[in-house]
Amino acid sequence: MSKGRRHGERRARRGGGAVEQISWRQVANPFPPLEAVSADELEAIHRASLRVLEEIGVDFLLPEARDMLERAGADVAADGPRVRFDRAFIREAVARAPSTFAVHARNPARDLVFGGNAVNFAVVASAPNVSDLDRGRRPGNFEDYCNLVRLGQALNIAHLNAGYPVEPTDLPPPTRHLDAFLAQIRLSDKVYSGYALGRERMVDFIEMARMARGVDEARFEREPSLCTVVNANSPLQYDRPMLEGLIEMARRNQVVVITPFTLAGAMAPVTVVGALVQQNAEALAGIAFAQVVRPGAPVMYGGFTSNVDMRTGSPAFGTPEYAKATLVGGQLARRVGVPFRASNATSANAPDGQAVYESEMSVWASVMAHASLVKHGLGWLQGGLCASYEKLVLDAEMLQAMAEFLTPLTVDDDALAVEAIAEVGPGGHFFSSSHTLARYERAFYAPLVSDWRNFETWSADGAVGATQWANRIWKRLLAEYEAPPLDPAIDEALADFVARRKAEGGIAAA
Amino acid sequence: MSKGRRHGERRARRGGGAVEQISWRQVANPFPPLEAVSADELEAIHRASLRVLEEIGVDFLLPEARDMLERAGADVAADGPRVRFDRAFIREAVARAPSTFAVHARNPARDLVFGGNAVNFAVVASAPNVSDLDRGRRPGNFEDYCNLVRLGQALNIAHLNAGYPVEPTDLPPPTRHLDAFLAQIRLSDKVYSGYALGRERMVDFIEMARMARGVDEARFEREPSLCTVVNANSPLQYDRPMLEGLIEMARRNQVVVITPFTLAGAMAPVTVVGALVQQNAEALAGIAFAQVVRPGAPVMYGGFTSNVDMRTGSPAFGTPEYAKATLVGGQLARRVGVPFRASNATSANAPDGQAVYESEMSVWASVMAHASLVKHGLGWLQGGLCASYEKLVLDAEMLQAMAEFLTPLTVDDDALAVEAIAEVGPGGHFFSSSHTLARYERAFYAPLVSDWRNFETWSADGAVGATQWANRIWKRLLAEYEAPPLDPAIDEALADFVARRKAEGGIAAA
Repeated sequence: MSKGRRHGERRARRGGGAVEQISWRQVANPFPPLEAVSADELEAIHRASLRVLEEIGVDFLLPEARDMLERAGADVAADGPRVRFDRAFIREAVARAPSTFAVHARNPARDLVFGGNAVNFAVVASAPNVSDLDRGRRPGNFEDYCNLVRLGQALNIAHLNAGYPVEPTDLPPPTRHLDAFLAQIRLSDKVYSGYALGRERMVDFIEMARMARGVDEARFEREPSLCTVVNANSPLQYDRPMLEGLIEMARRNQVVVITPFTLAGAMAPVTVVGALVQQNAEALAGIAFAQVVRPGAPVMYGGFTSNVDMRTGSPAFGTPEYAKATLVGGQLARRVGVPFRASNATSANAPDGQAVYESEMSVWASVMAHASLVKHGLGWLQGGLCASYEKLVLDAEMLQAMAEFLTPLTVDDDALAVEAIAEVGPGGHFFSSSHTLARYERAFYAPLVSDWRNFETWSADGAVGATQWANRIWKRLLAEYEAPPLDPAIDEALADFVARRKAEGGIAAA
Repeated sequence: MSKGRRHGERRARRGGGAVEQISWRQVANPFPPLEAVSADELEAIHRASLRVLEEIGVDFLLPEARDMLERAGADVAADGPRVRFDRAFIREAVARAPSTFAVHARNPARDLVFGGNAVNFAVVASAPNVSDLDRGRRPGNFEDYCNLVRLGQALNIAHLNAGYPVEPTDLPPPTRHLDAFLAQIRLSDKVYSGYALGRERMVDFIEMARMARGVDEARFEREPSLCTVVNANSPLQYDRPMLEGLIEMARRNQVVVITPFTLAGAMAPVTVVGALVQQNAEALAGIAFAQVVRPGAPVMYGGFTSNVDMRTGSPAFGTPEYAKATLVGGQLARRVGVPFRASNATSANAPDGQAVYESEMSVWASVMAHASLVKHGLGWLQGGLCASYEKLVLDAEMLQAMAEFLTPLTVDDDALAVEAIAEVGPGGHFFSSSHTLARYERAFYAPLVSDWRNFETWSADGAVGATQWANRIWKRLLAEYEAPPLDPAIDEALADFVARRKAEGGIAAA
């Protein structure tokens, strides 16, 4: 990047032109994982989870799933949904899950790896509401849905789509998934996710994901190309729609992110450690079931343990408890060799300081826990009840800075700069030294939002704060947005598929 | 704490009464330090610093300091301020510094330990300006100075005073330190810091710190009771006032925090690693000199390497570079066995999202680097040019959450909660389980600022954001503030001392 170009871009950011951001990259974490419990304590939690699975069990509300588990050797109750698992069953089933795998996007440059030290940040998913500074909060709708997909496509730090960034509630439920996913495929070439809301929807998502890549059935099965989250209906329950979705996905070797939603004091014990025991039991049961469906199917271990505000019952996120639970979640996932999923979560109602410090606690804990997937990485607000345009941009800045933080320093003679120190000498200045002039253009992280001008200049220019900058930046990003190329034949085939499925009425029992 | 009291307090926080906060505690970090460079790379940096000290040297602008160094065996230039150090000299001198030590407050309950895994958060220091939401930014003054000292005293997460939270520019310079320190002693019983601004001021600070504790000379020397920061005048220079202060402090066995101010691209090489080479050379020279003054004198190794914004020359803080430099700073300090000092820094102009994410990057890096002293922990804004009332409260929330995050989880049968999980069973709810009811009152961190109510309730109550809550909270804290008890005889002796020194005219050449 030439000096003129870089300076021009940075001026442009404040004026009106291309938004400067970091380049697309797969982020790798060079640090060892941070561990919040000792090896002995970890074993105590894991053993307690095995006791829960053996003695209490988990309700699988789909008869087909119970049949599959019974055939595989689990202890299925004769007169109800309860399934109990002995520890050998769990160990053997979970051991079949791969510890690392690739997920394919329709643009091969956007393929991702999960597991190892890879870190992938996803756009917010499933918010029922949307907000921005100009229009306030409103129910999710297709226009905002498309705009948020565009922003996720435009921002290089967003690695994948994790579902609908906001629920397009103005689309009719029976066919919503068809229109929404078609739009997402057209607007974004990054990895997609579908919803495990029953068999029919999942089958549609899967078929469209295959068509989007333009690959045949066999290759689609060899190359996982779609993700879905399967939440336990905590405590200790998996419901029919989720299990149907899980079965369809695992059968086709697509990625299932098993995520118990264990809020300590509500759906799980009030102790963080007890909530983790239950999270781990539910996760192991779900992962084992996926491996029963198809041995070797790619799965992730999702941790979402937080606490409720005991005064109001409201969920709280980005708390110290959430951060510790996330670290232990990573330990438990590594204990069984499955990639870990965590989230960038906050309970704040506005994209303000609370949103930022709760998100930073979430992101640091997720990264230090070696989460491979940081869901809701960009744009989550209000405990997930709202997608925020400004929060999405603030998150992009935080995640870009984290990605840069995770980029190792180079230590060589050039970087050590002893000659430059000698040249400048005591009491001198480095601004105009040859070592500086040769390197300054690319020496440091260039922020997306941060305003580093001094107070006087900043004040004279309107005293614009971070949230207001974020507001300007998402507008700039949308103005500059260009849809990624899509083979017209694929586009047409997808449009035909959607038209046919809509003509059939979409989902019968929506 | 009874249920009624806790609930009453939390209601009170939103209404009008006692502010709920965590209790006073010394924070310990249970995690291993995070390392940003390998052992080999660390040695390369350290060796490069030794080359700088041997081949280039450091200017000591105080002749007395050069004489002391020459007598100790350093290579002092005959015709200028330059001092060169061979590696054996540095190794032997630095080895005399203690790896851990206590610092005594006038209230023994506020004594602190530095070194090991102790983490101490200090109130902002030395800002020339002050701001709050109501009155905007204004030059530092004695009224705000006193209020900020009160807030530091009131907030339990603030472990010590690190100087003047804001410069009381309305006090005459020759006697400012006398009035300011007397007020600080009266308003706060936490550890104090003085300024190394020449010999006379330092001697006054030391004498008043001794008097405040009511101990004799011998005990004061056995029990370090005052801290000071000595900045290198980077690159590679120590000026006269700082060296005079260092000598007085080290001679009396008080704590000297050696802190090079190495902004990459300005006072240090443009590469972070090069800036660290220079930081380490300057720190080692300063630490070695303190050990020449008095072997075994308590010192800290301060890291303050960040980068400038190459467009404007403005310093940038809380950047990815700052975070990595802080981690390496911790490694370099451990390499020589000296407690590490870092900072909670940001360049933001307002207590907004930028201030929060830059501070979180700084705090996480400081804590993960095993900083024993996190300077500017509460209230720093605008790259240190302004102390902010609201930022101070937002920082208190962030630091409280960090302290809770650092508190290990308990893993025992009670916490594992298998019986509670069995009692509630699949599909049940934990709100009213006996395990929950017995524990919920103290189960989770109670925030200082965060508002966890749902969007509708929050909106109906005025949609108050985090910075506005912070504004209300500092006012509540000031309204509730009570000065810590001070022995009237000590108070009178201090007042007499100040009166005498003022009658003498204070500092002659101020």
